[in-house]
Amino acid sequence: MNDAEEDLPNTPPEPGEVGLVEVHDFVHPQPFAFESGQLLPGFTLRYETYGRLNPARDNAIVICHALSGDHHCAGIHALTDSKPGWWNNFIGPGKAVDTNRFFVLCANVLGGCQGSSGPLSVDPATGRPFGLTFPFVTIRDMVRAQKLLCDHLNLSSLYAVIGGSMGGMQVLQWGIEYPSFVRRLIPLATTARESAQAIAFNEVGRQAIMQDTEWHHGGYSKGGGPHVGLAIARMMAHITYVSDKSMDLKFGRRKPAGAVAPPGTATPSRKPNAAEAAVPANPAGTSAAYTFDVQFEVESYLRHQGESFINRFDANSYLYITRALDHFDLTAAYGSLEQAFAAVEAETLCIAFTSDWLFPPAQNREIVLALLRASKRASYAELATNLGHDSFLLESEELYALVRGFLGSP
Amino acid sequence: MNDAEEDLPNTPPEPGEVGLVEVHDFVHPQPFAFESGQLLPGFTLRYETYGRLNPARDNAIVICHALSGDHHCAGIHALTDSKPGWWNNFIGPGKAVDTNRFFVLCANVLGGCQGSSGPLSVDPATGRPFGLTFPFVTIRDMVRAQKLLCDHLNLSSLYAVIGGSMGGMQVLQWGIEYPSFVRRLIPLATTARESAQAIAFNEVGRQAIMQDTEWHHGGYSKGGGPHVGLAIARMMAHITYVSDKSMDLKFGRRKPAGAVAPPGTATPSRKPNAAEAAVPANPAGTSAAYTFDVQFEVESYLRHQGESFINRFDANSYLYITRALDHFDLTAAYGSLEQAFAAVEAETLCIAFTSDWLFPPAQNREIVLALLRASKRASYAELATNLGHDSFLLESEELYALVRGFLGSP
Repeated sequence: MNDAEEDLPNTPPEPGEVGLVEVHDFVHPQPFAFESGQLLPGFTLRYETYGRLNPARDNAIVICHALSGDHHCAGIHALTDSKPGWWNNFIGPGKAVDTNRFFVLCANVLGGCQGSSGPLSVDPATGRPFGLTFPFVTIRDMVRAQKLLCDHLNLSSLYAVIGGSMGGMQVLQWGIEYPSFVRRLIPLATTARESAQAIAFNEVGRQAIMQDTEWHHGGYSKGGGPHVGLAIARMMAHITYVSDKSMDLKFGRRKPAGAVAPPGTATPSRKPNAAEAAVPANPAGTSAAYTFDVQFEVESYLRHQGESFINRFDANSYLYITRALDHFDLTAAYGSLEQAFAAVEAETLCIAFTSDWLFPPAQNREIVLALLRASKRASYAELATNLGHDSFLLESEELYALVRGFLGSP
Repeated sequence: MNDAEEDLPNTPPEPGEVGLVEVHDFVHPQPFAFESGQLLPGFTLRYETYGRLNPARDNAIVICHALSGDHHCAGIHALTDSKPGWWNNFIGPGKAVDTNRFFVLCANVLGGCQGSSGPLSVDPATGRPFGLTFPFVTIRDMVRAQKLLCDHLNLSSLYAVIGGSMGGMQVLQWGIEYPSFVRRLIPLATTARESAQAIAFNEVGRQAIMQDTEWHHGGYSKGGGPHVGLAIARMMAHITYVSDKSMDLKFGRRKPAGAVAPPGTATPSRKPNAAEAAVPANPAGTSAAYTFDVQFEVESYLRHQGESFINRFDANSYLYITRALDHFDLTAAYGSLEQAFAAVEAETLCIAFTSDWLFPPAQNREIVLALLRASKRASYAELATNLGHDSFLLESEELYALVRGFLGSP
């Protein structure tokens, strides 16, 4: 129970990299009451840690992941891994979140599908996945479960909690729920409550899943399920994670290699005043340009995003977690944002990104202004980026320097 | 052939309103070659007209509709109609497009599904809907078909061509294709070529349709088809037609009447520092807030948008028309925007809307700048609105005054 650090790999990581990491399962054996009033007899959180806990057990940093993220935020599981964890650029020895100094902890959220308890977990009562019988999950439930993990690891306090997007919501909830336990909050690209537009996009994704004939009201078997709906939801959501400009820079109107030119492009010198009803210029091979197959690189990219998501994410979890996002509303839950932050003791650095149109700068600024009105220590940074909402994942020396400076030394 | 005006209702419309209107079918009996090189032995355009053609037959204004629009842009078909045509606020006696002075003509686009030839039309060779055997349609094909209708009506020239969104693309193509025939162009909320983001949204909609098991590669029967996919496509597209701000103003995070409060809202004075693992505040009845049924008004609104679209639109037409949108690219088709506009003789007024993020102001401004660089008469107006892309349909005295002033007197 108190020996989490002994579970860490003993081999020092390569300089600058977390290196090989192991996953751990925290099994909470007591009943857990969800905010909805529903109960589970116990739950599991899958997590990873990087760096070493100091003797005072107060150098821990909790990383909170976003909707489609997981506990594997740094390092690799095997030397053959093609990619490291999703925030590997940010976390490691000498990096913005320096694992030479901090003990970094990241758990898959409650309701998730990467090893933590969620709709995909097997209900011992039936021997089949919970599906829609899994209790509804809120951001606060996610945070309360993470706190139980911190207690299990005997952490005396958290040096900081850091997360982007839905991770940022958890960061705020951490500061509100456990004020004396958390010393620094770094929410990035987040909001204290989603706009109607963000709810609307989530709802379209849920409808795509729930109206898929393979959904079976959540009762599909492992490996089955509403793959088409989940892929559609992901394709659409992905558009909201990037920006118009980043898509234009990355893809523009480019055709995939081997694609046929679209109408007209093969005849740039076509006389514009072609006689009507005459057979128009028909460059050899244009017929292949007139299909509903991939015609633009951005289409092929989106299809890939949708297809790869099917293999790593559970559709019911997608429903649960987007609902948690939609329901998160600090203003409604506490009467006002100032009241929500009344008990906060931590110092906050909130970071927004100019091109984020899902949780735009104004929504992040609102958080900081409310903290300041509630006489809390809070600062706001707005970074000029092109990438959109996903900017918090950018390799950005500016971002690293902000976080490093705010974290200081343990 | 020359008696279009005699087809008009003889009873004078009510002051200020177009009043009762009839639909007409223009049947073009000769072969029509599409830009793709494919042929149809003939085609039909369904259209309406308002106002009277003058003896010189030169006071006609063509209205071009957007993706989901149709020929019924003003007046009513029966006294019991609950709603008039889609641009009724804009077109009528004494209105911005004054039917006391102009002969107004609007046709359902080629490839559409409201009476004009499209994938839903019955292929005489098989006795069944064309489906995917219908020729691919481009914006230029739509315009060429409309020109044949104008010839059929013996119009000597067009006083103006007006349209928003995809209608604006047709307006530009009209000016390029038939320079001596068109005297004024009013494109609104449009683009000379879609951005990667706009293509991406269209592609997600197409995938929702094409991956619906009821699509049958376009071979569904009339009344059947990929209803779920079409509704998903429409729900998502609708988000892109409005703005974040307009959705917040119209819906915000409001719950439908009778909906149960979301987590926490029933306990605004909840102490934020609740002891972990204790049963959290569980306001009576919150369980009903934890469903995937409608929780927010914006969800119910979107579902309604999706469901009503199924009843009025054909899924294959949606595929064809979004492809026409994606392929429209004046820069690629003519080598540059300046070259595209080289032959234009008409004077242009391009109107953009500040809150339009689908075809944003910059893309409209680009059109006018290219016209000016090509030494054409062109002006640009940008109206400050909240509604987003659909702002061109707004009841706006500012918009009406701009259009009225530009049109002047026949």
